[in-house]
Amino acid sequence: MDVADLSPAQARERFRTGARIPTAGWCQGWTQANLIAVPKRLRYELLLFAHRNPQACPVLDVGEPGSWSTELFAGDLRTDLPGYRLYRDGRAVADLDEVVSEWRDDLVPFLIGCSFTFERALLAAGVPVRHLESGTNVPMYVTSVPCQSSGSLSGPLVVSMRPVPGELVHTAIRVSGHYPMVHGAPVHVGDPAAIGIGDLARPDYGDPVEVRAGDVPLFWACGVTPQAAVLASGVDFAIGHLPGHMAIMDVRDDDYLVT
Amino acid sequence: MDVADLSPAQARERFRTGARIPTAGWCQGWTQANLIAVPKRLRYELLLFAHRNPQACPVLDVGEPGSWSTELFAGDLRTDLPGYRLYRDGRAVADLDEVVSEWRDDLVPFLIGCSFTFERALLAAGVPVRHLESGTNVPMYVTSVPCQSSGSLSGPLVVSMRPVPGELVHTAIRVSGHYPMVHGAPVHVGDPAAIGIGDLARPDYGDPVEVRAGDVPLFWACGVTPQAAVLASGVDFAIGHLPGHMAIMDVRDDDYLVT
Repeated sequence: MDVADLSPAQARERFRTGARIPTAGWCQGWTQANLIAVPKRLRYELLLFAHRNPQACPVLDVGEPGSWSTELFAGDLRTDLPGYRLYRDGRAVADLDEVVSEWRDDLVPFLIGCSFTFERALLAAGVPVRHLESGTNVPMYVTSVPCQSSGSLSGPLVVSMRPVPGELVHTAIRVSGHYPMVHGAPVHVGDPAAIGIGDLARPDYGDPVEVRAGDVPLFWACGVTPQAAVLASGVDFAIGHLPGHMAIMDVRDDDYLVT
Repeated sequence: MDVADLSPAQARERFRTGARIPTAGWCQGWTQANLIAVPKRLRYELLLFAHRNPQACPVLDVGEPGSWSTELFAGDLRTDLPGYRLYRDGRAVADLDEVVSEWRDDLVPFLIGCSFTFERALLAAGVPVRHLESGTNVPMYVTSVPCQSSGSLSGPLVVSMRPVPGELVHTAIRVSGHYPMVHGAPVHVGDPAAIGIGDLARPDYGDPVEVRAGDVPLFWACGVTPQAAVLASGVDFAIGHLPGHMAIMDVRDDDYLVT
């Protein structure tokens, strides 16, 4: 069975039993989300950080302290993502397949929108998605653009990049703009240096992707941004997903379509 | 000088020196906001309540604990609104001209979008605004529609109502829909009983307004909703504005226009 045709529950079972693989292209039509779980004491600052940086951090769902499922995610947040990243004192200390023993009673999980959600719509509109063609993870970059801070939380905007043929740039902007809750239209088009990206071939997260002749790089705000803030702000404890290895939610892409 | 032509600072000075008057039509072109200030311990629940009920509770700005100004409101939140309502233990205990002695060190002020913001656009599109014609406050109603709860906070949706000539209903929907951050398009059109409103002539807040032959009542989500939640949830202490007596902000209506 093609991974595109799996149900969220089927995909989560594969991840729970060990598959560590980026989720671009999985469960077509189902919404994917970034995970960031922080101690209860930081939940207000994080929610306000998300509110102040809505294009990067659209909050799709929030769990109760210590819970490992939410209204829109019926799986187990500790095991059902294909990969996790553990943070201590502002450093990424481990990449893990599950985080059962790390999931503290005071952790509050936030599920943040992901641009994978509109890739099906891009394809349907005739816009090629290069990392789907190559079967790799989307490339992501830490930019020089600062986020609005919230209390102790600050950090740079992270973006994902998709190379789009020049004549389809307006289509890609229009189509993704119809999904404002999952990053919406690009935050930047063209010159990577203008937002502090030195080399497209060396992403900070994910895999490099081929930029073909005539392609223009399009940059979308990325839900890894809270993890960059955890790093930049020296947060003592947090759990995120491994970038590109998303939570597959029990809600459909079309629920976030605004026309 | 017509109140429509006052600057925010000029209007705030009038309110600071005692004028208690609804602000519909004041400072045309400048954004107006609802105030709800709660103890720090409730700020996460309130921010999440707002996030879960975005059409009623669009958060325009949040202050630090104990502060009485914010980035987008350069005045003094304790004195520069034309009227305040004080809540204790889930009851409205006083309407006041200023709240200097009530403003505790741990109070966190939230400024919530207000539908007055798009009234200028309605007028410009040829849609009459009846309460501006009569020089009265907009009528507001507590509905039977429950909000999404957040921790200890729950309560009913509050709406404002504007009667609109039948042939202009689609225009009013379209124009207000361009302002999603200040309640956007109506939540209901037509029959008041469908959302639990018994008698349009007896609003829960504000003044009744004439519904002329051929008018259709349009109902917009209202930023008084957090105050209804304070009442319904038995919150021990909170300060709100007197409904219709808004904070006039240092930001322009057009900053919330989405086209």
